[in-house]
Amino acid sequence: MDNWDVIIVGAGSAGLSAAIYAVRSGLKTLVLDEKFAGGTIADAPTIVNYPGFVSISGGELAQKMADHARALGANIHDIEAVTTLDLKGETKTVTTTGASYTAKAIIISTGSHYKEIGAKGEKEFRGRGVSYCGVCDGPFFKGKRVVVVGGGNSACITTLYISGLASQVTVIHRRQMFRAEESLVNDLKAKTNVNILWNTEVQEIKGDRQVRSVTLIDNSTGQTSELAVDAVFVQVGEAPNSQLANAAGVEIDEHGYIKIDMHQRTNLEGVFAAGDVTNHPVKQVGTAVGQGITAALEAYAFIRRPYYKK
Amino acid sequence: MDNWDVIIVGAGSAGLSAAIYAVRSGLKTLVLDEKFAGGTIADAPTIVNYPGFVSISGGELAQKMADHARALGANIHDIEAVTTLDLKGETKTVTTTGASYTAKAIIISTGSHYKEIGAKGEKEFRGRGVSYCGVCDGPFFKGKRVVVVGGGNSACITTLYISGLASQVTVIHRRQMFRAEESLVNDLKAKTNVNILWNTEVQEIKGDRQVRSVTLIDNSTGQTSELAVDAVFVQVGEAPNSQLANAAGVEIDEHGYIKIDMHQRTNLEGVFAAGDVTNHPVKQVGTAVGQGITAALEAYAFIRRPYYKK
Repeated sequence: MDNWDVIIVGAGSAGLSAAIYAVRSGLKTLVLDEKFAGGTIADAPTIVNYPGFVSISGGELAQKMADHARALGANIHDIEAVTTLDLKGETKTVTTTGASYTAKAIIISTGSHYKEIGAKGEKEFRGRGVSYCGVCDGPFFKGKRVVVVGGGNSACITTLYISGLASQVTVIHRRQMFRAEESLVNDLKAKTNVNILWNTEVQEIKGDRQVRSVTLIDNSTGQTSELAVDAVFVQVGEAPNSQLANAAGVEIDEHGYIKIDMHQRTNLEGVFAAGDVTNHPVKQVGTAVGQGITAALEAYAFIRRPYYKK
Repeated sequence: MDNWDVIIVGAGSAGLSAAIYAVRSGLKTLVLDEKFAGGTIADAPTIVNYPGFVSISGGELAQKMADHARALGANIHDIEAVTTLDLKGETKTVTTTGASYTAKAIIISTGSHYKEIGAKGEKEFRGRGVSYCGVCDGPFFKGKRVVVVGGGNSACITTLYISGLASQVTVIHRRQMFRAEESLVNDLKAKTNVNILWNTEVQEIKGDRQVRSVTLIDNSTGQTSELAVDAVFVQVGEAPNSQLANAAGVEIDEHGYIKIDMHQRTNLEGVFAAGDVTNHPVKQVGTAVGQGITAALEAYAFIRRPYYKK
């Protein structure tokens, strides 16, 4: 069994930022991620609001952060999924698909996953026209008719990105206004190949080998209609990946987010959380970074108990 | 009188990050700073722990953040010092040396200032050998004998920087261990022209037109000694610039830091605070950025009261 000072579960912006600070503090640090290091920002076509970079692709920023952590000596195990956590004792145990590790402190930075809309056909056509990531799958639909479902920042960013590829983009939003930055909304309204359907929901996604159409319902009138499309990009928000931590006794709020205080402490001693998995009110790259840094320095203080924290 | 949605007082990492998000949210945003935009990071020789940049000079990062905010359309008034704040009503008034402005919300991001050690001669020789900023004044002392006072991250970083310029650096620390990242301490101990005096304090700084020597006292034995030096760099921490806000009714803690909650709210409605001026437990570039972003989005929600925040 491998022994570490701190194990960071999840290698997104929060986890990588925590790793940078943990390593520089002299902690023996392991980072685990079920996917490749980088987290959800890797899916963003463009990031224009991480201070210091006027504009950078999400993939490039994710790579920079992972390189940064590795350059300082962080041990990052990609593609190694955690299966169980034992967090209640003084020594924490993390079991993965391949091994078992112990640590004195744990940082949970498992982020969130894309929410589904629950439409008929959504699961069936996933990967055959139904997608949750514009930058991953948008290029497959060059010159095609695309639907984007949602009304937040992610839906607007995805629409802007895909409007440069697809012939026609229809935004389906169940409300009559966006919940997005004004500058995004303005950019979107200026696009000539973008059409917005307010108060509308997707009832069913239909097709053969691939998506061919969607059935829409106007939620103010109840009227349904058919729209011929080649792809459906779902951007209706995220839900936290807090199941494993919660099963190990970490307290979550009514929406599933891990409850933290200003020190990124959870209810369990020696267990910290950072980033999109927490109940912090803002979910942005820059706030995940700040939380990761705080979690690492608080984990350091917890493990080493330096004179100024006694 | 100029009317704004939000006025951000202080253009350091927190204030500039707040500006980026406030502008992108469509708020009419004014940033005021008594100095040039950039804040205290501009004084750092090197920053190696802002995720995304493996290594960058503080001045360059400060410039990138200011350029980022300006590129998005933020109005930054450099060299315009705030003289009074009136924060209790629904409309907030900010008076500067040159004008008066009103706003619906205020973000206080005034940072902190360097603490003095209180040694005899410290004020007298400021600017004539006594400095609080290694990167600003270090190059004046190439090949000279320099003292660095302090034992935290800033003292270690300053020592590392100056050891590449000065012939001999003596670190004076009142305790017998550093309060700094282990990797910094290791780098410092590897330097052959750096000498560390533990349990030692500077009693007096002496000279003629410029610094010539310091009188040291060993605080474990009470013994004093003389050390011939050309410069004294003081790096003993910071104190928050919260006086103006406090005078306007913003609550501070026992050390003078503005009390905030997880939403960066202060005790006054519509008044937010972010960065080194707050009582957040960590004072780092990355945490100031996260706090600035949160403050801007919470100020937006306060002003516009969008449906999802009602």
